[in-house]
Amino acid sequence: MRSIVRFAVLALAAQSVSADEGMWPPSQLPSIEAKLKARGLELAAKDLSSLTEYPLNAIVGLGYCTGSFLSPTGLVATNHHCGFGIVQFNSTKERNLMVDGFLARDFAAELPADPNQRLYVTEAITDISARVTRGLDGVGGLKRYTTIDKRSKQAVAECERDAGYRCDVYTFNGGRNYLMIKQLEIKDVRLVYAPSEWIGNFGGDVDNWMWPRHTGDFTFLRGYVGPDGKPAPYSKDNKPYQPKSWLRVDPKGLAAGEFAMVTGYPGRTNRSRLGEELRDAIEWSYPRNIKSSGEALETIEQATQSRPEAAIKYASTVQSIANGYKNQQGQLEGFAKTTAVADKEAEEARLLAWIEADPARRARYAPAVAGLKQELTRVRALRETDMYGNALLMKGPALYGAACELYKLAQERRKPDDERSFGYQQRDEIKFKGKLAALDKRFDPDVDRALFELALGRYLKLAKAQRIPEIDRALGIDRDGMVVTDLDARIDALYAGSQLGSAEARLALLDAKPRDFERSNDSFVQLAVALYPAYERMETEWKVRAGNDGLHRSAYLDALIAFRESEGRPAYPDANNSLRVTYGTVTGYSPKDGVQNTEFTTLEGLLAKVTDKDPFLHPSRAVELMRKKHYGKYADPKLGTLPVNFLTDVDITGGNSGSPTLNGRGEVVGLVFDGNWESVSASWVYNPKLTRAIHVDIRYMLWVMDEVDQADHLIREMGLEPTEG
Amino acid sequence: MRSIVRFAVLALAAQSVSADEGMWPPSQLPSIEAKLKARGLELAAKDLSSLTEYPLNAIVGLGYCTGSFLSPTGLVATNHHCGFGIVQFNSTKERNLMVDGFLARDFAAELPADPNQRLYVTEAITDISARVTRGLDGVGGLKRYTTIDKRSKQAVAECERDAGYRCDVYTFNGGRNYLMIKQLEIKDVRLVYAPSEWIGNFGGDVDNWMWPRHTGDFTFLRGYVGPDGKPAPYSKDNKPYQPKSWLRVDPKGLAAGEFAMVTGYPGRTNRSRLGEELRDAIEWSYPRNIKSSGEALETIEQATQSRPEAAIKYASTVQSIANGYKNQQGQLEGFAKTTAVADKEAEEARLLAWIEADPARRARYAPAVAGLKQELTRVRALRETDMYGNALLMKGPALYGAACELYKLAQERRKPDDERSFGYQQRDEIKFKGKLAALDKRFDPDVDRALFELALGRYLKLAKAQRIPEIDRALGIDRDGMVVTDLDARIDALYAGSQLGSAEARLALLDAKPRDFERSNDSFVQLAVALYPAYERMETEWKVRAGNDGLHRSAYLDALIAFRESEGRPAYPDANNSLRVTYGTVTGYSPKDGVQNTEFTTLEGLLAKVTDKDPFLHPSRAVELMRKKHYGKYADPKLGTLPVNFLTDVDITGGNSGSPTLNGRGEVVGLVFDGNWESVSASWVYNPKLTRAIHVDIRYMLWVMDEVDQADHLIREMGLEPTEG
Repeated sequence: MRSIVRFAVLALAAQSVSADEGMWPPSQLPSIEAKLKARGLELAAKDLSSLTEYPLNAIVGLGYCTGSFLSPTGLVATNHHCGFGIVQFNSTKERNLMVDGFLARDFAAELPADPNQRLYVTEAITDISARVTRGLDGVGGLKRYTTIDKRSKQAVAECERDAGYRCDVYTFNGGRNYLMIKQLEIKDVRLVYAPSEWIGNFGGDVDNWMWPRHTGDFTFLRGYVGPDGKPAPYSKDNKPYQPKSWLRVDPKGLAAGEFAMVTGYPGRTNRSRLGEELRDAIEWSYPRNIKSSGEALETIEQATQSRPEAAIKYASTVQSIANGYKNQQGQLEGFAKTTAVADKEAEEARLLAWIEADPARRARYAPAVAGLKQELTRVRALRETDMYGNALLMKGPALYGAACELYKLAQERRKPDDERSFGYQQRDEIKFKGKLAALDKRFDPDVDRALFELALGRYLKLAKAQRIPEIDRALGIDRDGMVVTDLDARIDALYAGSQLGSAEARLALLDAKPRDFERSNDSFVQLAVALYPAYERMETEWKVRAGNDGLHRSAYLDALIAFRESEGRPAYPDANNSLRVTYGTVTGYSPKDGVQNTEFTTLEGLLAKVTDKDPFLHPSRAVELMRKKHYGKYADPKLGTLPVNFLTDVDITGGNSGSPTLNGRGEVVGLVFDGNWESVSASWVYNPKLTRAIHVDIRYMLWVMDEVDQADHLIREMGLEPTEG
Repeated sequence: MRSIVRFAVLALAAQSVSADEGMWPPSQLPSIEAKLKARGLELAAKDLSSLTEYPLNAIVGLGYCTGSFLSPTGLVATNHHCGFGIVQFNSTKERNLMVDGFLARDFAAELPADPNQRLYVTEAITDISARVTRGLDGVGGLKRYTTIDKRSKQAVAECERDAGYRCDVYTFNGGRNYLMIKQLEIKDVRLVYAPSEWIGNFGGDVDNWMWPRHTGDFTFLRGYVGPDGKPAPYSKDNKPYQPKSWLRVDPKGLAAGEFAMVTGYPGRTNRSRLGEELRDAIEWSYPRNIKSSGEALETIEQATQSRPEAAIKYASTVQSIANGYKNQQGQLEGFAKTTAVADKEAEEARLLAWIEADPARRARYAPAVAGLKQELTRVRALRETDMYGNALLMKGPALYGAACELYKLAQERRKPDDERSFGYQQRDEIKFKGKLAALDKRFDPDVDRALFELALGRYLKLAKAQRIPEIDRALGIDRDGMVVTDLDARIDALYAGSQLGSAEARLALLDAKPRDFERSNDSFVQLAVALYPAYERMETEWKVRAGNDGLHRSAYLDALIAFRESEGRPAYPDANNSLRVTYGTVTGYSPKDGVQNTEFTTLEGLLAKVTDKDPFLHPSRAVELMRKKHYGKYADPKLGTLPVNFLTDVDITGGNSGSPTLNGRGEVVGLVFDGNWESVSASWVYNPKLTRAIHVDIRYMLWVMDEVDQADHLIREMGLEPTEG
């Protein structure tokens, strides 16, 4: 009588809530001042739009994370997981700083990071759209790409005449705007203090993206500059950098319902993408990435078993893969549960109707939509090769990768600097060298080989037309994907026949000419030379795509922005690693009917989670203090206990990690370090009811520093007083 | 440097919260009137203590659950899981009422329950402690038991001279008080309406004890009486019973924070037990019960695979085992997570100190404590035999069980009625007969045999001293537990050699004499006769225990009550299947740090949980209505949607299932049907912060009746109007 009902999607109408989405470029903030004030901002919006004043000039980019200056001597707070690579870099089998934590008692004891580590401070942002796109109306493909690329590099070169600065042209709104961003580039970064991994990464992958959360995800670094005060690579003679501003810390933290904002460097969002791009991600790329990541994690685990040294080398890689793995699973789960896809498609349908409704709009925008969709179709036809073939060209064995980059550098050096590929200009060479030198720290031949064989296995499943002839030839793969020669022997020979495991051998190739590579006996150098034509083809194809995408998407974004504004909705550019400000309030959310995730977690909740098993181990001193309810002076009087983590509805994404959480006066009240499980799909669609950021509370940070690790001198350096002077 | 910390127990001091524990005998309510009024009771406390007035005279006991009269023609509301046995009794392979649900369009269509089904209405409670314990000061063991038992039976016989009534003596406070409870006994019970199992048991075992919850756990029965208005067994000529009172229904339900109370028949609690009894449960009996239940569930599943008829027969058994299985697991989890054990032991330590502090108290109570502990030690020595040996005497093959009970009846009939064992008096014979007749409905030889072999396997692991000689002899088990004869062949012979699979054969033995059994060729009758001496020994041992326990525990309870009162704490008797009232408010709780379980679940939450897999299947009509947000007139204006289930902090336990949830005016606003996961350990210790009851909201019940199942006539019978008349 009753029929079985197929899986029912919860189809709640989006309700109006108080959360405001948006990762705002500082310059746009005055345009939303009324909203900011209504939510509780006490500063003027213009204070938040000036790059050279408090608080923005105290915000620091790490390239992949964010930090902030908290003292006049260049002390930088960021997340534990952002500084984890530096901790790992300084860890050995004998002295595992990851577990023990590290605290430098004075400047001299601070540990240098990987020479590639940087701290960036954005000092100027200039719109150079007109300059770089001049004469390119209607021009796409390689010509568009190379023209914009060359003009950008010229502009960058001009900008970087100012020594100590890094300049980059950032693409906003899919190529609608090109902005020159000028950043002070601090090249000597040191580790000051990291709590034990058992605090800084408490909950580990189990809790990653989860609420409730009890992670002390903070670490302190310091920027050093040369004796002349200018950025310089690591030297014992360097001295702490003295920033123009440093953030004040409010040790009282925030309460539920209070205003919070986050300033930082969000990486990438896809909010202005087409519905079919989202569908491709859901149906095609995410499931494949998830599978590959799961296999990679398993491979690394097996290959490092009982080898703690190798495990240390890959710890950071594992953390990064595991993060992406869980993230994409969460996105798929989120899309299955929410109306995000339907919402996105509904918006696109309204946009298309809006374009069609007006002849001028139709003339201007319809070709862009058509062009974009056509390009997507073209790219989709190549995606198997992209995912499983080009991946090998890009992420083959680590020593092949080093050889490949060195050979590419030798090739690029034959061109004028402003025509060289991204990453191979003169300005990139120090970083290039640093990366080459540091490769050993994250390389183990057995793990490397296992990962290579894993990727090769996937490649071998491609049809011949999807494979890459140079790879097939180099590895002896025949037309049907059957291996004619003994592949194992080939791989044995590759790994046995290379000297590039030695940093000296790698660095010796830095100034080699292309013919030196072509004549080399080194197995991985030979492989790099053999695959180079394919590498160049791939690079050219990407440039063509970028040119076509820029042509169509910039016009599409013109349409989308005008349309959103016509609906009275926020029109901010997708995140692109540039400095942004987002704001909101301390607020929980309902993860499911009948359940509310509340604003704060507490020390008692942390204690209840402690076990004798990773990742819920905890330092005994902290446990002892928690058992005694020894809050020091950091308890919240209203909560009656010490808050550990808290939730807000600020709009963040990867790259924001480590960003200071600020109160309405621009004072630090925590660090943002994660989003909730429901937020992972927010890279495509922000959901005001579900998208939440997770912060470590300043009071917990201070408690750990003061009571657990006795980092009194750092507390004083931040202008505060530790317990009992 | 840091050592690993062993599992840390969350040691929060019990905070004072507004919840009041207590399952109050009606007569005690006036003593707590101030609290009741403060919480929101609008009735006078004395209204709640009168058994013959509204609302108590509308409360109905089912023996294992509770119900309530909701109409002048004997309509009874209870839980779906309480009426499930009746639904199952009326289900066949062809007409599976469990899945389809059932709705009688008129009286004539209502389906008779198993003839053992009863409805009880408590009409009088009389303290007969003095009468039954006269002259027993300091007397324990068999003498105490048999004396109290005989006097109780005499009192019962006197009480039951009033035809149509069932009288029973209930032990309160461990033998401190004996109360005669006189209940009207309605013997003709019929199924009126049960929604589909997909509503009534939505979430099934997965959601059992869980929040959030979305279960429509309600069913309607009706009591019938003879044409003279007196209770009578089922007859076509019977007519609906007309109760003196029936509960008013408030279709507006409750809001968060409002007063709620539950009147019903809570089964058993252990709140006055000793700490070491709790430890025995945690360390010994629960782990073994959990293991056995898990094995039994697996065995039944395997033995009923692809046999829907057999599965229907065991559905109710499975539900009951699964419930206990999950319950005891939850209790262990609860004890591991909370301070219940420590709290209990701390209270006991304070009690013992209080006893020691005063010579008079010491003289009076110390021997009771010592005696109780000594008896526990004695009983503990026998527990292996109790659990794995006596279990076989009690719960062997079903047909053996029938033979055993019949033989026992024949034996008991030789005694004066007031000396017969409990359950074997004249007054029990109708029920006895009904049970015998209905055995087929819940019996399948293959499942029965599989369960018997499972229990036998456990028995065979006992040491010789723990085994039961009669069982060993009857089954041919040698002294080391090795089986000498072919056990399989014995079991084959047992199952092949009995006629008791036929109800006729069973009923024919109802009036047989002991010698008829002793001469019988029936295999299970022979087994019953062979094991009977062991059965009698076991029964005697239990009587000795009951006598000893009564002697010591009654004095211990004197002490405990006086002590609790000296601390200003509630002193109510442990639940014992007698009528109780508990009260509290609609309120959520925090299951863990950073998470709050909120008061209501909603139709949207239900829809989000629906899948195409059991137990989250749902009737298509309900899904359609939910998708359309068709709330009828039942939505909550504040919630903006239709509430499905809700939480209160009323203090309930098993047996309360089906109890009406009443507002401050004594009107029905839902039915209680479960406790939360954190409440399962509340049978030992009530935790005001965590112990919660789960109710089905009256508005959801009415919505299902009105909109999904069109039970308009029942809504009218309850004095309400369905949508659109």
